[in-house]
Order: sequence, then C-alpha cells, then structure tokens
Amino acid sequence: MKHIVWDGDYADRAIFEDILGQLGALLWFTGLSGSGKSTIAKALQKKLIQCGTYVVVLDGDNIRHGLNSDLDFSESGRKENIRRIAEVAKLFVEHGAIVITAFISPYKSDRNSAREIVGNGLFKEIFINTPIEECIKRDPKGLYKKAISGEILQFTGISDPYEAPDNPELAIQTINLSIEESAEQIVTFLKQNGTIQ
Amino acid sequence: MKHIVWDGDYADRAIFEDILGQLGALLWFTGLSGSGKSTIAKALQKKLIQCGTYVVVLDGDNIRHGLNSDLDFSESGRKENIRRIAEVAKLFVEHGAIVITAFISPYKSDRNSAREIVGNGLFKEIFINTPIEECIKRDPKGLYKKAISGEILQFTGISDPYEAPDNPELAIQTINLSIEESAEQIVTFLKQNGTIQ
Repeated sequence: MKHIVWDGDYADRAIFEDILGQLGALLWFTGLSGSGKSTIAKALQKKLIQCGTYVVVLDGDNIRHGLNSDLDFSESGRKENIRRIAEVAKLFVEHGAIVITAFISPYKSDRNSAREIVGNGLFKEIFINTPIEECIKRDPKGLYKKAISGEILQFTGISDPYEAPDNPELAIQTINLSIEESAEQIVTFLKQNGTIQ
Repeated sequence: MKHIVWDGDYADRAIFEDILGQLGALLWFTGLSGSGKSTIAKALQKKLIQCGTYVVVLDGDNIRHGLNSDLDFSESGRKENIRRIAEVAKLFVEHGAIVITAFISPYKSDRNSAREIVGNGLFKEIFINTPIEECIKRDPKGLYKKAISGEILQFTGISDPYEAPDNPELAIQTINLSIEESAEQIVTFLKQNGTIQ
C-alpha cells in the first residue's frame, strides 16, 4: 500500500488523486442512440484499467436500474436524470476518479447544468459524432425502426431534437473509425491534457 | 501505475479491488444526532488514507447539498434520502471503495432496505452508540435545545423515534472512548474481517 503523508482534517480531491496516482476528470459523452457511446466508453475503460487507472463508467445499466429507477422519461424526469448523473459523477471525480458518463443527454441546457455542477475544468464534453443515417442503419436495439413507425414517441433524432455540442472538448467522428481507434483518440486527448501519463 | 492483466468485457468489483489493493465494503454508521458519526467517520477515513486505502465518506456535507438537495424532511423525503445514499454507496463499493456513510438513519426498515440494495456481505452496520443524555449534553449544533423547547419538531430521539439496531456488525460504545479509540476499534474490525490488511 502507498503511504500517504497527510495530516489535514478534510480529505480533498488532491489527496485521492495522490492515492490513485492520476487526476480526476469527467468525460461526458453525448451522442445519438446507437452512436457508440457505451461501447466506446467500455473500450476506453478497458484500455485505461489495463494501465492501472481507476475509471468508472456510468451508463444506463448501473444508473437507470438503480439510483434513477424512480424516474420516468417526461421532461422533468429526463432533467432530473441528468442532474443526478452529474451529482454522482462529481462525487467520484472529487474522489480522484476518471468518470465516463454514457447518456444521450440531447439538450445543451442539461449538459451545461452538468458542467456547472461538476466544475468547468473537470468536465470534458466528448461528442460521439455518428451521423443519424448511420445510427438508423446500425439500430442495435431496433429502436429507430419503432421510432420511425411511430411505435415509440419522442425519440431523440427522430421525433425529439438532438442538440449537438457547439464547442465540445473533443469530437469523435466515429464513421471511419473502429471502436479501438475511437477509444485511442480519447486516450491521446487525456495524455495531451495531462489527465493520465 | 499497476499493470492489470485483464481481457474481459465487463469491469466488475474484483477488477477494481485489484487496482486499489483492497476489498470494497460499506460501513453504514447509524446513531443519534451528536453521537459522533461524522467525526468518527472522518477520523477513520484519515487513519485508512494514511495507509493508502481508498475510503469515501458520504455525509450531509456532500450528499444533502448535492444529490439530495431536492428532498425535504417528510417521511417520503427521508426514505428517498436513504435509498439514494444506498444506491450511491453501492456504486462506490462496486468500484472497490470502502465507503463510510454517516447519517442518523433512525428506521430499521430503511437500513434494511439499504442492506438489500448494497448486498448483505458488503453492508456492515456500525452502531455509533452514544446515550441520548450524552448527545443532549454535547449538543454541538444546539439542535437538542431547540427540539426540547419545541422549536424543532420531529427530532430523532426527542419527538421522533430512533430504532437502535438489534444485530449490528459492530457497536461502538463511545461514552468512554476518545474519537481516536472509536476509530481504532473500527480499524481492528476491518482487519479481523479481512477488508483491509
């Protein structure tokens, strides 16, 4: 175990970053359904974990079925969903973790609120930019088909807007990239801004 | 950085425990207002951090003002408060952290729900057992005075019940112990059950 020299009263982010040997950061993925957010998040997590980095992925699997299981998909429910994700991500980041959140998060206002909650320097918006035509072609869960036929209402990109980021910290044009290559671009980004070594 | 040999698809608790070199666990403190929960939690966190252990304290400071800032103190609000704390603690424990939660959590039913959410083997109920007479004497925030005079209603131990645990994993009789000694008893407990070395 690492010996930490510290005799303060309040364990702040710097202490946890020292324990973990990394800097805390939030990689806020945004993109259409089927754009590859979760897949790229998990590939990136794997790459980073293999270097011993402490990386947490928050996605539908561990949030929607747990903390946010009481929320519906109404406007207020979706807003609250994003608020809680940002608050939980902040708790992890404040404890030195690198957090990847993989949610469509279609509205600029919600993403900006998340940025405010977590803090501008720690929040990195990463646009998983896959054209909607490609997402419709992939349609891994068959959701676009249902949305286009009207079986699902208020579906982002079809019957509900997706507001693409204006100035994301990073945009991944997935169309000509493998999952590996997409993840690698984010690793490069993290090295360039000093989050990892 | 530690090199992790792993080629799976899903990063589970074992992977994170390997990165952190410890076992995940939740130490769910329960006890009256003024019993010393937060103070002992922070003293324990400090002891463990100095050994390089990754320990997260969730308390009013980082939960009530953030994630749970939308909740009131009604019965449903208090129940939801505990549910969300358990869900967030679970996320940290599933990522290998040792989590200390420091909330009064006066109702057995809520604590049992938290135990179910987190998982019986990972949830350790720690009763910070300070007699109410001592809490009233200490009254660090002046709350007991207000509760006894009727200025504050529904105050645990005065006008609302506190349901002491029947079979906590550990009970700390703080009355004859210093903060340091209380924290040390918990360190001994964690060593005995193999959570830390």
